[in-house]
Amino acid sequence: MSIPEITQKLLAAKQGKGLSFADLEKILKRDEVWIAAVIYRQASASEEEAKLLIEALGLDASYIQELTAYPVKGLGPVVPTDPLIYRFYEIMQVYGFPLKDVIQEKFGDGIMSAIDFTLDVEKEEDPKGDRVKIIMSGKFLPYKKW
Amino acid sequence: MSIPEITQKLLAAKQGKGLSFADLEKILKRDEVWIAAVIYRQASASEEEAKLLIEALGLDASYIQELTAYPVKGLGPVVPTDPLIYRFYEIMQVYGFPLKDVIQEKFGDGIMSAIDFTLDVEKEEDPKGDRVKIIMSGKFLPYKKW
Amino acid sequence: MSIPEITQKLLAAKQGKGLSFADLEKILKRDEVWIAAVIYRQASASEEEAKLLIEALGLDASYIQELTAYPVKGLGPVVPTDPLIYRFYEIMQVYGFPLKDVIQEKFGDGIMSAIDFTLDVEKEEDPKGDRVKIIMSGKFLPYKKW
Amino acid sequence: MSIPEITQKLLAAKQGKGLSFADLEKILKRDEVWIAAVIYRQASASEEEAKLLIEALGLDASYIQELTAYPVKGLGPVVPTDPLIYRFYEIMQVYGFPLKDVIQEKFGDGIMSAIDFTLDVEKEEDPKGDRVKIIMSGKFLPYKKW
Amino acid sequence: MSIPEITQKLLAAKQGKGLSFADLEKILKRDEVWIAAVIYRQASASEEEAKLLIEALGLDASYIQELTAYPVKGLGPVVPTDPLIYRFYEIMQVYGFPLKDVIQEKFGDGIMSAIDFTLDVEKEEDPKGDRVKIIMSGKFLPYKKW
Amino acid sequence: MSIPEITQKLLAAKQGKGLSFADLEKILKRDEVWIAAVIYRQASASEEEAKLLIEALGLDASYIQELTAYPVKGLGPVVPTDPLIYRFYEIMQVYGFPLKDVIQEKFGDGIMSAIDFTLDVEKEEDPKGDRVKIIMSGKFLPYKKW
Amino acid sequence: MSIPEITQKLLAAKQGKGLSFADLEKILKRDEVWIAAVIYRQASASEEEAKLLIEALGLDASYIQELTAYPVKGLGPVVPTDPLIYRFYEIMQVYGFPLKDVIQEKFGDGIMSAIDFTLDVEKEEDPKGDRVKIIMSGKFLPYKKW
Amino acid sequence: MSIPEITQKLLAAKQGKGLSFADLEKILKRDEVWIAAVIYRQASASEEEAKLLIEALGLDASYIQELTAYPVKGLGPVVPTDPLIYRFYEIMQVYGFPLKDVIQEKFGDGIMSAIDFTLDVEKEEDPKGDRVKIIMSGKFLPYKKW
Amino acid sequence: MSIPEITQKLLAAKQGKGLSFADLEKILKRDEVWIAAVIYRQASASEEEAKLLIEALGLDASYIQELTAYPVKGLGPVVPTDPLIYRFYEIMQVYGFPLKDVIQEKFGDGIMSAIDFTLDVEKEEDPKGDRVKIIMSGKFLPYKKW
Amino acid sequence: MSIPEITQKLLAAKQGKGLSFADLEKILKRDEVWIAAVIYRQASASEEEAKLLIEALGLDASYIQELTAYPVKGLGPVVPTDPLIYRFYEIMQVYGFPLKDVIQEKFGDGIMSAIDFTLDVEKEEDPKGDRVKIIMSGKFLPYKKW
Repeated sequence: MSIPEITQKLLAAKQGKGLSFADLEKILKRDEVWIAAVIYRQASASEEEAKLLIEALGLDASYIQELTAYPVKGLGPVVPTDPLIYRFYEIMQVYGFPLKDVIQEKFGDGIMSAIDFTLDVEKEEDPKGDRVKIIMSGKFLPYKKW
Repeated sequence: MSIPEITQKLLAAKQGKGLSFADLEKILKRDEVWIAAVIYRQASASEEEAKLLIEALGLDASYIQELTAYPVKGLGPVVPTDPLIYRFYEIMQVYGFPLKDVIQEKFGDGIMSAIDFTLDVEKEEDPKGDRVKIIMSGKFLPYKKW
Repeated sequence: MSIPEITQKLLAAKQGKGLSFADLEKILKRDEVWIAAVIYRQASASEEEAKLLIEALGLDASYIQELTAYPVKGLGPVVPTDPLIYRFYEIMQVYGFPLKDVIQEKFGDGIMSAIDFTLDVEKEEDPKGDRVKIIMSGKFLPYKKW
Repeated sequence: MSIPEITQKLLAAKQGKGLSFADLEKILKRDEVWIAAVIYRQASASEEEAKLLIEALGLDASYIQELTAYPVKGLGPVVPTDPLIYRFYEIMQVYGFPLKDVIQEKFGDGIMSAIDFTLDVEKEEDPKGDRVKIIMSGKFLPYKKW
Repeated sequence: MSIPEITQKLLAAKQGKGLSFADLEKILKRDEVWIAAVIYRQASASEEEAKLLIEALGLDASYIQELTAYPVKGLGPVVPTDPLIYRFYEIMQVYGFPLKDVIQEKFGDGIMSAIDFTLDVEKEEDPKGDRVKIIMSGKFLPYKKW
Repeated sequence: MSIPEITQKLLAAKQGKGLSFADLEKILKRDEVWIAAVIYRQASASEEEAKLLIEALGLDASYIQELTAYPVKGLGPVVPTDPLIYRFYEIMQVYGFPLKDVIQEKFGDGIMSAIDFTLDVEKEEDPKGDRVKIIMSGKFLPYKKW
Repeated sequence: MSIPEITQKLLAAKQGKGLSFADLEKILKRDEVWIAAVIYRQASASEEEAKLLIEALGLDASYIQELTAYPVKGLGPVVPTDPLIYRFYEIMQVYGFPLKDVIQEKFGDGIMSAIDFTLDVEKEEDPKGDRVKIIMSGKFLPYKKW
Repeated sequence: MSIPEITQKLLAAKQGKGLSFADLEKILKRDEVWIAAVIYRQASASEEEAKLLIEALGLDASYIQELTAYPVKGLGPVVPTDPLIYRFYEIMQVYGFPLKDVIQEKFGDGIMSAIDFTLDVEKEEDPKGDRVKIIMSGKFLPYKKW
Repeated sequence: MSIPEITQKLLAAKQGKGLSFADLEKILKRDEVWIAAVIYRQASASEEEAKLLIEALGLDASYIQELTAYPVKGLGPVVPTDPLIYRFYEIMQVYGFPLKDVIQEKFGDGIMSAIDFTLDVEKEEDPKGDRVKIIMSGKFLPYKKW
Repeated sequence: MSIPEITQKLLAAKQGKGLSFADLEKILKRDEVWIAAVIYRQASASEEEAKLLIEALGLDASYIQELTAYPVKGLGPVVPTDPLIYRFYEIMQVYGFPLKDVIQEKFGDGIMSAIDFTLDVEKEEDPKGDRVKIIMSGKFLPYKKW
């Protein structure tokens, strides 16, 4: 797992400018997770989105071409070692089969799309300790028969 | 990956009774995903919950002891092969690092708990195709310094 | 990799009846590859399809329930050892990146669905040696931005 | 998985010239997938093909020697992480055994060649969403007895 | 790696009859290595060959159907542990690239077929210690361009 | 798998000189496969052999020391991805156990040495398509009892 | 496994200054293991802690930003090869299940947190050979039901 | 990972008798973790210890021989999937190198023995949530020079 | 890793008779390690050796045939989990390259045979703790040039 | 597996000086295998030993600090590919369990230390071919009960 060089530069510029992902969300009118995915070269921006991002970060236009390219996706080892990311892997080890059964009982034989898909993060304040709320929404795709 | 024998028996009884997980949710007053996790032996029921489940499925009390035991958790190969479950693995390959950055920017250095954690599935009706909505909520745990 | 027991029984019955997959295609009005996928428990049949299949194979109705269930999918080792199946793995090792670039140039950033998907096999007669023709057709799914 | 340096240079030149793979197909009189395979150093061009390609991309002749060499083939991790490429891996996990049975029923004990082999991509327009059509054609090779 | 049950039975019968593979070669008019491959369920016999084999081993006709089926091929762990088999793996680790270069220099870009292929074992007597001679012969398959 | 730098330089010089491995065989009076193994740093040359090789390739004497060193051997991933090399891996997956039985029936409990070992490649002309002939010869080593 | 460059620089500076981790413990008022974790970029320091560390090591302030960042955690191969670190892996192979049962019998179904967690090392002098004492303390997290 | 059959029987008997590991500690005068290790067949009991254990669990003497045998040790997959056990693996991923440095700074080049080793679990009551305390003590073994 | 059934029976008989491997060494006039290797089905006995072993263990003659067969060798996971066996794996991780250099400096380019090979275990009494002494002796095999 | 840079420099200097490991053994009064382990950064020298080594090799004192550091140990892939080193891996695959049983029968439940451990290589002259003799001596460590 090696973070792409362009990612490192964009993140450094973002830190230098003191901008949060939430700030970028307001500038690009796109969700902060999606913007982070563009920065990690997991999603492709339109020319306009790339320009807005580059300007916000104070970088020159030479980055635009790479940010609009369709990236080779997937970042990280087979089993993630970072504890924050591992927990999501563990959730699937523990709740993957239950989830499959519940989804398929509600929808039929098929899957939740990871392409026609959105992912949001919210902070739930809680006196016993704040909670991370993750909302995923993916189109249900039924298996085609032929 | 082999589905535990008790799971197979409980699922067969559930199908024989024509009960959905949503039906069991009403009987046990627990979320359907959690109930499915108990059936897959990834979560432990209280004696009372186990009784309610066993009665609903028309099985004898001999299953109660196993359902209340603390299971060895984790089911499935290192990289899941079932397409529905794989998509969640893919989501972490693609959005794992962006997610880490957004969560830690909002909360600091730490993780979302996968233990003090809930997971819900909802069906979003949509004329362009229904959507699967997954809501995860986990307590944020900041790294302790010592 | 272990072939499911029900698959072995259905294949034995099919051989006993002297039926080809092409024969089953005529009986079920479904493509032979899809029928083979049902038999290998990688696809789920409707009740009616399951009945037609069971009757054609001369088996009793007790198999219907399993054939209509939504299977846990994926069969085979990480790298396939069977030479026929391995060749498709090799094709992706050799032509995977070229294919990605050509598809994305034609369609944009996204994927070919493996769910809204069909797969046909045809025999091309050729004096220099017959050829296997594989036709895959999958809906293009563009990456959603949010 | 690291994209060869020469590939990166050729792709950058292609983008700079605003040429699509389909454009190159017209210039080289070779299929665009095969040309992409040459660029990814998975196939070897003849001297003439290499010249045509190099001229079209506006590069100097020093690349010709490498493009005509017989490459060490295979690019990508054991299980692909890029979603577009992974789907083909998944297709073989799900439909590999059904495919094997159907092919061998039609042809006998043997394989589809991945060497005497062609691979085409077509765009099928469809009001419900365009479809990716992949056509593979490989010579059937029966197992020799001796 | 588990030796198929039918293999174990055939080998036990062979040992019981005191027959060597060389003896079977004379009876079936097929090479002993190929016959061993049939017994290990890596090659498929014709009905006549299966009958000859079964009769020689004194077994009943019920084995014929399985011996004529087209097997799922590949037996053994990813890296073989048996020293005799490992040595061939090691030969490819050490001489694989040199071999590739020499073959491709003589034949062009392509491979030696492992399907249109024969494999013989001979004993070379030598006062300094007998030698194992392995002769492989496979059709050269040039890469097709399209 | 990364080809050693010295190998890349020697191969480039060989191509520049327009020399085949067969040409080098005549110069060094060693088999072309063995010479290729020296170039890939899998075998060690004597000082005289290294000199002959270096002179033939028109390189300076500084390479001699490395070519006479005893290399760390083994080149390539656990399962080879290059189709030419993979076929030999597949041959062992399919014919490994049959081969073991035939060899041990002829020789007793032991192995074919991969050290006291030679490997030759020949081109068999054939109107139905030329064939690659591989001849391996290794000393049989019986297991010692003690 | 590659030690981060910043880690190598900090450790070199520490050695140059002749400072032990115990010395740093006194300066930062943090446990030496935690400080070592900061140096290995497995834990994030506050600005003040980073300054104290940097001053103690005689380095310039440019390191502060990186030391306060939230690192991507996890360092080392899947199965550690260093004998000191491997022993802890072995302890879990041997005592992992016993430990799970004893902890869960005392606390219920849940885990020991690795986030709300401290780790201390002490030297126990012993005439038969000094002993390493490791004290871990992690908050017990009970599985949430929902 | 499969729990040995004898372990399953002993744990069932223990549950049937309503005995905790702490109860067994009092009976055998051995630490509860070590007793659990004997039950999981990771440690070997003396004849007397085995007798005390068997009597406490109300089982017959036939188990004694197996409990005194020297077991093949190591239980669990390469990367543990059970969240409780995984956390210890994660601790080594995160704190392994820091721990190595701190231990070797205190003791010199060597390791903490996992053989001359004890492991205790304690419950620390805490108003903010009880804590699991793990105390490991292993003899320091310095590397021998020769 | 599963211990062969015949091994379990022979070891049980050996324990029942109260015989040590050293006792068997006296009866068979073969080294105890080699005898253990026969029992674990890693080495093949002559008919006479098998008879002596069977008689000593009080078993019937039906085991002789299997003990004289040439076994499929190799027992254990890729990385051993048993601490005693792992230590030898670790020794090669730590001292493998040094050993290679020292052996090849003394003998030239080649290997120590693991086939023409003996392995002895001795107990060295030592007041500071007894020592295990392992003596391996393998024929040096120089690489053949051809 | 990459040989450390310092190792490459020390080995080149050693070759330049024409010194064998046996020569270094006389200079350092340490065994040649241990000295090779220092050079491969698997063992740590004292300041004095490092000085003697550096002087013998004609290098400057800047290497001393690194040679006295406590290295991160373990060099090589999970399954070694170099034939000389692989043979030791194979010996453990074949003789590992027999060895375990023989050692534990002589010593009880425990292991041979790989830390309080020495390893010697001797050349046994033999008219049938010289033999490599390896002598390992490790302290026996009995499992502690607690």
